[in-house]
Amino acid sequence: MTGKVYSASTTAPVNIATLKYWGKRDTKLNLPTNSSISVTLSQDDLRTFTTASASESFESDRLWLNGKEESVQGNRIQACFTELRAMRKVLEDTNPELPVLSRYHLHIVSENNFPTAAGLASSAAGFAALVRAIANLFELPHSPEELSRIARQGSGSACRSLFGGYVAWEMGHEADGSDSRAVQIATQEMWPDMKGAILVISASKKETSSTVGMQTTVNTSSLFKYRAEVVVPQRFKEMSAAILAKDFETFGKLTMIDSNQFHAVCMDSSPPIFYMNDTSRLVVGLIETVNKIYGRVVAAYTFDAGPNAVLYYLEKDGPIVLGLLKAVIPEVDGWDKKPSTASIAATVPEGVDQRNFASIRDGVSRIILTGVGPGPQTTDDSLINGEGLPK
Amino acid sequence: MTGKVYSASTTAPVNIATLKYWGKRDTKLNLPTNSSISVTLSQDDLRTFTTASASESFESDRLWLNGKEESVQGNRIQACFTELRAMRKVLEDTNPELPVLSRYHLHIVSENNFPTAAGLASSAAGFAALVRAIANLFELPHSPEELSRIARQGSGSACRSLFGGYVAWEMGHEADGSDSRAVQIATQEMWPDMKGAILVISASKKETSSTVGMQTTVNTSSLFKYRAEVVVPQRFKEMSAAILAKDFETFGKLTMIDSNQFHAVCMDSSPPIFYMNDTSRLVVGLIETVNKIYGRVVAAYTFDAGPNAVLYYLEKDGPIVLGLLKAVIPEVDGWDKKPSTASIAATVPEGVDQRNFASIRDGVSRIILTGVGPGPQTTDDSLINGEGLPK
Repeated sequence: MTGKVYSASTTAPVNIATLKYWGKRDTKLNLPTNSSISVTLSQDDLRTFTTASASESFESDRLWLNGKEESVQGNRIQACFTELRAMRKVLEDTNPELPVLSRYHLHIVSENNFPTAAGLASSAAGFAALVRAIANLFELPHSPEELSRIARQGSGSACRSLFGGYVAWEMGHEADGSDSRAVQIATQEMWPDMKGAILVISASKKETSSTVGMQTTVNTSSLFKYRAEVVVPQRFKEMSAAILAKDFETFGKLTMIDSNQFHAVCMDSSPPIFYMNDTSRLVVGLIETVNKIYGRVVAAYTFDAGPNAVLYYLEKDGPIVLGLLKAVIPEVDGWDKKPSTASIAATVPEGVDQRNFASIRDGVSRIILTGVGPGPQTTDDSLINGEGLPK
Repeated sequence: MTGKVYSASTTAPVNIATLKYWGKRDTKLNLPTNSSISVTLSQDDLRTFTTASASESFESDRLWLNGKEESVQGNRIQACFTELRAMRKVLEDTNPELPVLSRYHLHIVSENNFPTAAGLASSAAGFAALVRAIANLFELPHSPEELSRIARQGSGSACRSLFGGYVAWEMGHEADGSDSRAVQIATQEMWPDMKGAILVISASKKETSSTVGMQTTVNTSSLFKYRAEVVVPQRFKEMSAAILAKDFETFGKLTMIDSNQFHAVCMDSSPPIFYMNDTSRLVVGLIETVNKIYGRVVAAYTFDAGPNAVLYYLEKDGPIVLGLLKAVIPEVDGWDKKPSTASIAATVPEGVDQRNFASIRDGVSRIILTGVGPGPQTTDDSLINGEGLPK
């Protein structure tokens, strides 16, 4: 193999929506039926690391995910490649000194630092890292907003992982998707004390994929349109304002009711779609009870297209929230990853019914303790060797 | 004890809604936010038997339910007594020969032929029987429609148990509730081959009472109003027409999507209300699969404010539906009550995934095989002895 191997690497974060994306108005371009909002999670706990390389000597586009070569023939990944190469070509056309990377094949190597079996949406971090790594390789001057339009075509929610902190995906209205992109509402630094705890709950049966599920909802739910057109636009304004005001009470309430409404429209679909299971519901009941006891939102739950519970809470309430979780699920994997939590004592607030603790314990396999984090990080580390293959 | 004891007895049926009642616009008068439709079930399987008696010698109004004396001080039961006595008084005023039962105290004895622990809505049959028995005692000439307005004040859905067959509760629009009453859409004889199978599923935790739950939904769900005002009126017309046309395909589809939507608005409430559990959802999945395999609605599921599944199907499909249920839950109580089913062989249609059968089996404790049935039946049997006390 001859020819210089150009390469660039990045990490990209997972994001968990607090105002849910569910439904596409254009399935090819991944244009959503409503705007959404998410919190970007710390890459210490959950991240994709991707190296993109290009060389005249590469014979085809290739991709390795978590050590296994995968096809690059999918429409979604091809759309990303095409758009990024077109951007690179504009640079090359104006500067003949540049290597013509837009004409070289790409080798991409990508790895997650979390178990894929956990059922955590890894496609968002994956496509964000893919787009960001190639953009770095191509030395594209485009803003994260502009790149987010491309990541969106890979996986809708990936557009939000181009930013850290608190992120909105503005649905846009153009048919070509040019105005459907992510923007940052607030940086991590503006509201740094947002913590997250993910309770990994195993699904008892194969779930409906979100791609199939959301279009089932769009096509069959009689409540969905009202949600997308009337309810979400109002919540979007309220949640954006709550984030800017660092108003956790409002942010948390909206997060919970929007998660519940997302699962409500899933259930209103035909056939009905159920992502939450009995364990998920017991966690909801536990958090609702604790919030009621304290007379405020101590923790807010949200559930994506699966049974896992994600809890958001403020750092100051860590002793309450983590103390409770230690009482409920003391033995699960994950506590050991955060030695700082070792000093928190298991505590059950008076008034919490402990009879469901055993059922929750049976259903939860792992806890991932995390918090708000930054966007993609360029790194000099590389997953690719001098010959353009996975190390 | 002296004084003649006047008495009259009736049975009244359970009804299971196919277009759900959920939400009151007037909680005192039990005026609903939308019209609803139900099928009245056979009293061979589920009924309340009530004797009402009156005597000058009774010292107070008294009520015995399933062998236990209960208070009659509740607003709902008092509303029924007051309305029925007023109707009786009109008769007495025009005919001085009549005994003045309207001024006597009442002794009521009531018994169900099904275990209350089964979590089956017994209040509908209970209040229908109470109103019908007192109306019989008072020899009221009023139509079941008129009596249904009174039963409605006892328990909303009780108004539908004044009729057999297929029954609508027209929500009405008057503030005094005078036009909120049940009417019969079709008699049992017009569509006699409707069968029902109730799978009794135990709840893992105490459920939200429907009285509390529905007002939580009315007050907090942002999707509920759209359901009540836009979705249900259209479905009401479609389901009424399907019943008159004996169009099970349409009837069944509407029944399923309306059950799902009812549970969707429960989930869209704050705090969210969950009545279905993992077993309920596995039953939904099973029925959806079977209907897909057959390419038509073989059975339609519906769930009230609890985890029990009610399946409606046509008699001709008994071998398919009961054959499947025999394969899934062969050992539960209830099969023995219908010796006619002994000849049906356990049969699993090709394409049904049997891996969930064990989970369903673990969650279902009983099957009640029933079908469409008649309205309240006057009977000469009595639950009260010559002294006006329970036999």
